[in-house]
Amino acid sequence: MRPFTHTIPFQEALRRVHEAVRPIERTVTLPLADAAGRVAADDVSARADVPPFDRAAMDGYAVAADDTAGASPGSPRLLRMVGVTYAGSAPHAAIHSGECVEIATGAPLPPGADAVVMVEHSARAGTDVRVLEPVRPGQNVGRRANDLAAGAPVVSRGDWLSPARLGALAATGIAEVTVYARPVVALASTGDELVAPGARLGPGQIHDVNRFTLPAVVLAHGAELHHLSPVPDEEAAVRRALEAAVAADLVVFTGGSSVGDRDLVAAVIAGRGEILFHGVAMKPGKPTMLARVRRPGADAQLFLGLSGNPTSCLANAYLLLVPMLRALARLPAWRPQRLTARLARDIVAHADRHQFYPVRLEGETAVAAFKGSGEITSLSRADGYIEIPAGTERVPAGTEVTVTLFH
Amino acid sequence: MRPFTHTIPFQEALRRVHEAVRPIERTVTLPLADAAGRVAADDVSARADVPPFDRAAMDGYAVAADDTAGASPGSPRLLRMVGVTYAGSAPHAAIHSGECVEIATGAPLPPGADAVVMVEHSARAGTDVRVLEPVRPGQNVGRRANDLAAGAPVVSRGDWLSPARLGALAATGIAEVTVYARPVVALASTGDELVAPGARLGPGQIHDVNRFTLPAVVLAHGAELHHLSPVPDEEAAVRRALEAAVAADLVVFTGGSSVGDRDLVAAVIAGRGEILFHGVAMKPGKPTMLARVRRPGADAQLFLGLSGNPTSCLANAYLLLVPMLRALARLPAWRPQRLTARLARDIVAHADRHQFYPVRLEGETAVAAFKGSGEITSLSRADGYIEIPAGTERVPAGTEVTVTLFH
Repeated sequence: MRPFTHTIPFQEALRRVHEAVRPIERTVTLPLADAAGRVAADDVSARADVPPFDRAAMDGYAVAADDTAGASPGSPRLLRMVGVTYAGSAPHAAIHSGECVEIATGAPLPPGADAVVMVEHSARAGTDVRVLEPVRPGQNVGRRANDLAAGAPVVSRGDWLSPARLGALAATGIAEVTVYARPVVALASTGDELVAPGARLGPGQIHDVNRFTLPAVVLAHGAELHHLSPVPDEEAAVRRALEAAVAADLVVFTGGSSVGDRDLVAAVIAGRGEILFHGVAMKPGKPTMLARVRRPGADAQLFLGLSGNPTSCLANAYLLLVPMLRALARLPAWRPQRLTARLARDIVAHADRHQFYPVRLEGETAVAAFKGSGEITSLSRADGYIEIPAGTERVPAGTEVTVTLFH
Repeated sequence: MRPFTHTIPFQEALRRVHEAVRPIERTVTLPLADAAGRVAADDVSARADVPPFDRAAMDGYAVAADDTAGASPGSPRLLRMVGVTYAGSAPHAAIHSGECVEIATGAPLPPGADAVVMVEHSARAGTDVRVLEPVRPGQNVGRRANDLAAGAPVVSRGDWLSPARLGALAATGIAEVTVYARPVVALASTGDELVAPGARLGPGQIHDVNRFTLPAVVLAHGAELHHLSPVPDEEAAVRRALEAAVAADLVVFTGGSSVGDRDLVAAVIAGRGEILFHGVAMKPGKPTMLARVRRPGADAQLFLGLSGNPTSCLANAYLLLVPMLRALARLPAWRPQRLTARLARDIVAHADRHQFYPVRLEGETAVAAFKGSGEITSLSRADGYIEIPAGTERVPAGTEVTVTLFH
């Protein structure tokens, strides 16, 4: 066994993660209804004017604004209603001075009309409409192309497709959009001791936890999952798993990257590529490894080796894997849900390491929830975590801390 | 046409939304791998101890702690290594005083051992292991049941299934979990003027935008979508749509809830149930309607009528529909991504209404992006929105505002 000696600072690990990521270039064209939350791979311009015609912005009467000059409740202007236009109808025939058309919100203005008198500012008897307030030209009218003119930019390459951006594409008649493909993450748990939940444990065996925690993170941050079979602690098995993962954009192994004689992953990876770091001054999650692995006939592939300990693995996932996935997927940086709270008790920190420290919230107070890096209840009973930067000896009770929530 | 006169304050609308929602009671049992982000419908206890045996928490040597008393680099304690145990193996046969077993992280302790000497604190030659630091009983050992004892609570009814909670279920061998069903939202756009994107527009027609913006919101907040066919402006069509939606937990119509003669939705709903509000003092989004609709042989169904204007509709979705969906789905309250910025220019507000005001971010500055409630680019070119409570006449340039981001 070799002791695990060299580590790099957490911030340096994060820097190398960002440096190593090549954002995805593959694209896919999707119906608009399937494109929510995806990232536009092309600039898209409006195909047509939105709205495609001058339309009423209010329910009321389409008029020539000049006909309403000086109108007031005491001195209304009398117009003759010559028809009605609903939304979805063709425009009414042209109106002349002294005429108006009853018009619903969204309906096209008739030729000759340039404003809409709101129904609230009118009084009607039969076809006699009395206008009680003047309107200016254009008032209560949505002008053709006012929202989007044909040829105007609707979304740009790299834009995250918010509900509103999907709406803008729909408005201009676009039914499909080209987006970046989701990065494919191949995921394997290594370790002879692991057994799927539901199956019976033999002596020395435990249930595989990381196979359930990591996918939840991977899928929530814009990637697709390729589950690899569990990898026994044999060099040949590690090689076979890497071959099965050859098409993935990122390969994530949990376990097998610590220091024991049988921790074979690092040895296999070292023979196939470049290790960018192995060992991070963070707690938990020290044995983390980042590498670039050669592939025949393709670009090098990213490889992330995470601790097999469930809490270490998830801490790594939140702090390193999430930024990596989002950069790969070209998603905007993650802004997790955060709140501030006061620490209930002193935390004695590890000054040499960046700490990921789970806490439970009790009102405005953050209570330490960390038990041990092998213990999943450290996180499952926490509401979120605080980060304690390297160089901190102690965080005193009462300190205001920023809690990143798990939901 | 009847003017739209009575509105309730926005906060009162929100209160009535919360009062009207009956959180979902249906449940579904899912494999753990499909349960991320769902809400537990049962209390679940650990089936077995986690870990199921005393195990090494470090790579090193399993020892009887007593054998290491007083060890130091200058005065090491000599132990004889009698075997090796890897993770996943059965425990080694019992050790006696003066013996040790090489042990990997996660491997079961042999009987007779009660601590692990870290490899870093040892020196080895053949089967001679020199211990350089003493260990106390239990040191570097993960005790059986220390994470979870059989019978201990793992998740409680109502818990959001975070990655870590899925992990805790997996750790104790649970392969399936019963969660609340997703609420089903039936969605229809009403209006004779609407045409699907991709299809050609006739005179007076526009593309349907809300059919693309609302699903993105509905799916992001834990509901399932039941798309109804577009509803023409005819009473019979509104009735048919409600009948097609009879199995949904919530029916959302866009358009048709304003004041024109042909706005038939409110009339049909009034005949079938109880209108909880119709008209909210918010901008945009004034004609919003909430109702409870009777169903034969079932509980009343929630009905939400939103403005057909794309920006009004989305403003309503963010401010009223999201809290409604999350309460229905039993999801934790939404904590959207927020940041603070300084307002670039004065905003003249509408003191009588709660305003949803889209802004673009330029560095630390928030620039108004609102054009009009019919205009989708008001939102598609914004990064988020600010809320201006009723009673505010004007928000001066330089004011620090809280921007809720769309992503």
